[in-house]
Amino acid sequence: MISMKNKKKNAFYAQSGGVTSVINASACGVIESARKHKKFINKLYAGKNGILGALNQDLIDTSYESKSAIAKLKYTPGGIFGSCRYKLEDYKKNEADYDKLIKVFKAHDIGYFFYNGGGDSQDTTNKISEYCSKKGLDIQCIGIPKTVDNDLPLTDCSPGFGSVGKYTAISTLEAGLDVKSMCATSTKVFILEVMGRHAGWIAASSALASESRQNPPHVILFPEVIFNEKIFLNKVKETVSKFGYCVVVASEGAKNKNGKFLADSGLKDAFGHSQLGGVAPYLSELIKKKSGYKCHWAVADYLQRSARHIASKTDVEQAYALGSYAVDLAVSGKNAVMTSIKRVSDKPYKWKLTTVPLKKVANIEKKMPKNYISTDGYHITKACRKYMAPLIHGEDFPSYENGIPQYTSFKNKKVKKIKI
Amino acid sequence: MISMKNKKKNAFYAQSGGVTSVINASACGVIESARKHKKFINKLYAGKNGILGALNQDLIDTSYESKSAIAKLKYTPGGIFGSCRYKLEDYKKNEADYDKLIKVFKAHDIGYFFYNGGGDSQDTTNKISEYCSKKGLDIQCIGIPKTVDNDLPLTDCSPGFGSVGKYTAISTLEAGLDVKSMCATSTKVFILEVMGRHAGWIAASSALASESRQNPPHVILFPEVIFNEKIFLNKVKETVSKFGYCVVVASEGAKNKNGKFLADSGLKDAFGHSQLGGVAPYLSELIKKKSGYKCHWAVADYLQRSARHIASKTDVEQAYALGSYAVDLAVSGKNAVMTSIKRVSDKPYKWKLTTVPLKKVANIEKKMPKNYISTDGYHITKACRKYMAPLIHGEDFPSYENGIPQYTSFKNKKVKKIKI
Repeated sequence: MISMKNKKKNAFYAQSGGVTSVINASACGVIESARKHKKFINKLYAGKNGILGALNQDLIDTSYESKSAIAKLKYTPGGIFGSCRYKLEDYKKNEADYDKLIKVFKAHDIGYFFYNGGGDSQDTTNKISEYCSKKGLDIQCIGIPKTVDNDLPLTDCSPGFGSVGKYTAISTLEAGLDVKSMCATSTKVFILEVMGRHAGWIAASSALASESRQNPPHVILFPEVIFNEKIFLNKVKETVSKFGYCVVVASEGAKNKNGKFLADSGLKDAFGHSQLGGVAPYLSELIKKKSGYKCHWAVADYLQRSARHIASKTDVEQAYALGSYAVDLAVSGKNAVMTSIKRVSDKPYKWKLTTVPLKKVANIEKKMPKNYISTDGYHITKACRKYMAPLIHGEDFPSYENGIPQYTSFKNKKVKKIKI
Repeated sequence: MISMKNKKKNAFYAQSGGVTSVINASACGVIESARKHKKFINKLYAGKNGILGALNQDLIDTSYESKSAIAKLKYTPGGIFGSCRYKLEDYKKNEADYDKLIKVFKAHDIGYFFYNGGGDSQDTTNKISEYCSKKGLDIQCIGIPKTVDNDLPLTDCSPGFGSVGKYTAISTLEAGLDVKSMCATSTKVFILEVMGRHAGWIAASSALASESRQNPPHVILFPEVIFNEKIFLNKVKETVSKFGYCVVVASEGAKNKNGKFLADSGLKDAFGHSQLGGVAPYLSELIKKKSGYKCHWAVADYLQRSARHIASKTDVEQAYALGSYAVDLAVSGKNAVMTSIKRVSDKPYKWKLTTVPLKKVANIEKKMPKNYISTDGYHITKACRKYMAPLIHGEDFPSYENGIPQYTSFKNKKVKKIKI
């Protein structure tokens, strides 16, 4: 058992990296839990734009937000306090940043530090935790996981992934029905490009649209599998011959045998510049040219990771719980860990909260295991389906007014800067 | 009053053109209404792939479908019987098609013809109606409107549009929150490309995301407004300076002063071919090159018109009612009309069913009226908002199982071909 610490301090929370449709659910968990622990936590400050908020002493006082605005945070996509892409260097290389952080923490009496992000962000949390220890600063540093990419190690899944997976599966199902209806006289091949530069988790989730390989997605392109043009085109042709149409879901990170992204494979824009991007338009041109099929393509981009209207209830619950648990741990004196999800059973899906040491998760990418990709390299296995299926379970719709989800907005009142 | 006809015949129904998330709701209305009119309608046959089903005597007997499968049709995107892009020529040019149709109709005792589609399809319905009259064939031809493009004249709106509008507004809102969170250190400009080759209705619907021009969408590109690169880039720059980010929603049909689609403006693929398509990637490159902002873009393509999971309740109800009403009219002896929506009041939105002569809707495109586009050409007016807002009202979620909408599938049992 962890003993309760006998201190009352302020806390700092920030959101980092690409936002998701449920990172605010974690924020909601953090805020609501902090308010319950008034004995330990005085004020909860949020960093404006992630760690930059701490570096620039750009702090938001969350105590001004109403209970109902906070409750609605659970239903609101994006990062309510702003996020950032900022990687702290090693303190041996650049101590200035650390020095600034420590000064800000001291000036604002910060005793708890919560950082909500992916692998890079857990690295940041770890570095700050280590530096604080080294400097003898009494501060609990807890990481809260987040990433649509699902590539964080040592957690059953990453909050954000279940919802983007649900979005991807539903989009594949719906667009698939559209293409199937039209294929007799129009589009034969539809390509959906999804995120995942290094790991194919999101592309894989499209397979949850159906249990049968006769239905979309017929072909999935993973970054983990080297793209072979000839085999791919054959696969598409075979599918069109059999079913009249073919739905392809491609990771933006699909690569050829030279390790080059397909999206960078020679596209030139109106100005003669290459790297227009988009693996979907690339594949569409390839198929049109080599097979003559009429193609359509979609690039979901930010739509997929902000689609709170169709978030997974499981994902929302986990995101909230991981945030809330982080605060419980911190006030219990726990330090240098990330909250994480441990799977208890597959069917019914049961999970519990646990922790992992920050240094074990920092900078490690969890790719799709080999036994999750079918032997032909174009689909998922039963093992993968067993793992993924529960992550998209359940709906947790926002409330609507005039046809539009009622997402919350915050006052985001700034904390007065202190001269340091 | 229309007098009831004293005949019992079979009926033919088919879906035509690009499918929508609610065309099956119209089909549901047709089937359920036909089953109520057993005194007049014996069997309801559906055309496999639109009018091609009639031309090729490829008929589906809907009497094999269960009540519950039909009820679920209201919640299922795509076209359950298959659709087609096929334009009937004038009978004076090509009478063979008409001859075939008449033979099939006679062989299968068809006395009612229902065609569910956009402008081209209403033209087809009109031609068939005229030809049947000319040949003295006793057949009621009724058109049922459908098009996400909302470009059918003489109806308050076209079924399919309200739902794609809702999808577009919500996607803009959600992706906007994402970009806003990240803009301090990452993406400054986000571009969403939506459908609408000749009319900007769908792009306009993105404005329903917010009543304030301070919020996304900041810039809308309509096909009705000539694209001016300099003014556009200034607009984007101004928006980024003011708010830190800019969300652009672009019609695929945005054109330059030479009438050329921006999507065709010099993009070359890996094979040196132009016309890769995509106004969003084009604008993204333009902004990156000329303004230096980091951009992201999405192309919704079929996702937008198949997104039944987020359909507008108003749209679903209208789609159903227009289908059901078409059957009521036909058995009352009405002919050569399209069912349509008449607005009774704006607030609260009230509508009623009416009809318009087929020849008045065939081949006419309803573009955005000038007073619906703001004077700067980059947004909508209050008049437009008043018109559009009610069309996305209400939610009508499908039921879910294991995290996935339970869309229906049909037996689609073929009618035995008759030698003709």
